Amino acid sequence: MVREVELVHGQIRAPSLQRLPLGYDFFAVPLPEKTLIAHIRRMALQRGARGGNRALLTGIGDDCAVLRLWPEHELLVTTDFSLEGVHFRRNWHPPESVGHRCLARGLSDIAAMGGLPTAVFLSLALPAELPQRWVERFARGLLTLARKYGATLAGGDTAESPHGILADMVVIGTVPRGEAVGRAGARPGDRIYVSGALGGSAAALARMTEKRQGTLKPRDYPGHFFPEPRIELGRALREKGLVSAMIDISDGLSTDLGHICEESGVGAEVEAEAVPRAGVGKPAHEVDLEVALHGGEDYELLFTVPRGKRIPSQIRGVPITRIGNIVRRRKILLMSRGGMGCELGPEGWEHFKK
Amino acid sequence: MVREVELVHGQIRAPSLQRLPLGYDFFAVPLPEKTLIAHIRRMALQRGARGGNRALLTGIGDDCAVLRLWPEHELLVTTDFSLEGVHFRRNWHPPESVGHRCLARGLSDIAAMGGLPTAVFLSLALPAELPQRWVERFARGLLTLARKYGATLAGGDTAESPHGILADMVVIGTVPRGEAVGRAGARPGDRIYVSGALGGSAAALARMTEKRQGTLKPRDYPGHFFPEPRIELGRALREKGLVSAMIDISDGLSTDLGHICEESGVGAEVEAEAVPRAGVGKPAHEVDLEVALHGGEDYELLFTVPRGKRIPSQIRGVPITRIGNIVRRRKILLMSRGGMGCELGPEGWEHFKK
Repeated sequence: MVREVELVHGQIRAPSLQRLPLGYDFFAVPLPEKTLIAHIRRMALQRGARGGNRALLTGIGDDCAVLRLWPEHELLVTTDFSLEGVHFRRNWHPPESVGHRCLARGLSDIAAMGGLPTAVFLSLALPAELPQRWVERFARGLLTLARKYGATLAGGDTAESPHGILADMVVIGTVPRGEAVGRAGARPGDRIYVSGALGGSAAALARMTEKRQGTLKPRDYPGHFFPEPRIELGRALREKGLVSAMIDISDGLSTDLGHICEESGVGAEVEAEAVPRAGVGKPAHEVDLEVALHGGEDYELLFTVPRGKRIPSQIRGVPITRIGNIVRRRKILLMSRGGMGCELGPEGWEHFKK
Repeated sequence: MVREVELVHGQIRAPSLQRLPLGYDFFAVPLPEKTLIAHIRRMALQRGARGGNRALLTGIGDDCAVLRLWPEHELLVTTDFSLEGVHFRRNWHPPESVGHRCLARGLSDIAAMGGLPTAVFLSLALPAELPQRWVERFARGLLTLARKYGATLAGGDTAESPHGILADMVVIGTVPRGEAVGRAGARPGDRIYVSGALGGSAAALARMTEKRQGTLKPRDYPGHFFPEPRIELGRALREKGLVSAMIDISDGLSTDLGHICEESGVGAEVEAEAVPRAGVGKPAHEVDLEVALHGGEDYELLFTVPRGKRIPSQIRGVPITRIGNIVRRRKILLMSRGGMGCELGPEGWEHFKK
């Protein structure tokens, strides 16, 4: 079961999907969007200029995209809305960040199953007044991330939006048959681990809300503006057979650990001191414990490991921290250094209000 | 190659997908939507109460849906936005019709490839003020149609919408390897056929626009409010190996025939007298030729058949009409009875304006 992650030219390649020379279809599109999509298509082509991908993207338009799976693989499907005013704001988020975040959510779901992304589909509705430049930059953010993880933009739909920018991103991935890592496998005695550091995305959001008009420099808050989906880590953990359950932290540690506990029928003890807190801003300072516990959209992986299996302090360049244990009693406790525990409720992230 | 369509209890069953007992995920959902989704999930369960489907829907939530394809099948993927004010209006379309139409678009794309639908994913953003009753009726329309064609609601996303109802529907289907029917196979000498009758949907839309405030009785305009995707017909045509190219009429005959001609590098001659026109209203009367030629959203199938292959006047209960021929010269001509031709431009349907 222990196989190395295959790296091709420094990038993970999904081995499980062959693309057919049939294309994708954006029909019933008003002319400006048609031009736009043609443009995105050209950009996708330039960025994904590898044999297999090119075969799909230069392929002719048709009613559906046609994809061929390798034998002995299963299909992963996830969909995520990104709506202006709910998931992003045009005056807070540069277009490249919106495109990146829009795709990162779905890629992170694939990572949390131990899968590899293969094809992405973008449904995009744009207000008539939106400058074409915005969409180009949005597409650049999205396609740069897609290319990094070997995923092809394989289709979608477009429309004119009556209000605001609306995107729905579908990510299709694959995983060897029977190997998808679910949420229900955690057992009492398992250790709880988390990748990276938490709270950085929520802290950036809080700052923008406080500043009111406020823009932040994306390079000082990369965890919020350009979160990295943990595809390589998720794949490595699945291939080495190390994890009993896994989820990505999209709603906050407290909420997402709650999902694992609920689905597995167990409880957890989290050591407050152990939770890795993100450093944000310039000069960087550590986020509060509350933010690390409840802040969402970090897209780190939270996973449980049976006792006796060794986890290194770093996998594929990502720091891994042990933060607690799975227990039989079906509650989640936050433990202080002195051994006192208080119950940790699911107070994760919710969409920000207008 | 000639096999009969398998009917199980009067319904088509997709033979190519096994569902695994992993569920679907609606995360980061405000409480009202969470309740709503739980409700839709229960409805889906009641309506899709067959073994395989139940295994998916009662399965636990996870980051992705996991689907297993049978060997020797390929995957079809199509996505379609349905936006309030663009694709439907709350005061024109009953919720059941919105749910039905939202799914019919994707099913029709699957039909046009000769495929069978297997799983559907719904991303749904709802305004805070929307009555729960609306969503229940919407879900009923969608799930009734999904069940009819053996497709399972397997996941999606939800959010609160800042403006209007927003739905994005993903339909995943399958087709035996190498058998997907594309748009590029039409050859000079092929005959052009269309299923059903055309223009009924656009005529209903025109009447509502004229009436201004105007609601119509859905039972008098079923082609607009409850269009039937031609899944059984598409499958039968593909299985019998009768068609060289196929598309569904979503944008209007003139536009969609244009797509076939463009992708196949051919032209066409359409006999004006032969185009089957829908009867609409009560008492029913035939739509004008213009509406039949350019009106969209009929979701009938338009296909080409090599000379010498016989097409019956009815397949699976759907009337089939020959409307013209594919020609070498790359223009589309509309021919009068006397043999005069005028060029037929792509003046298909566009989203209606507010």
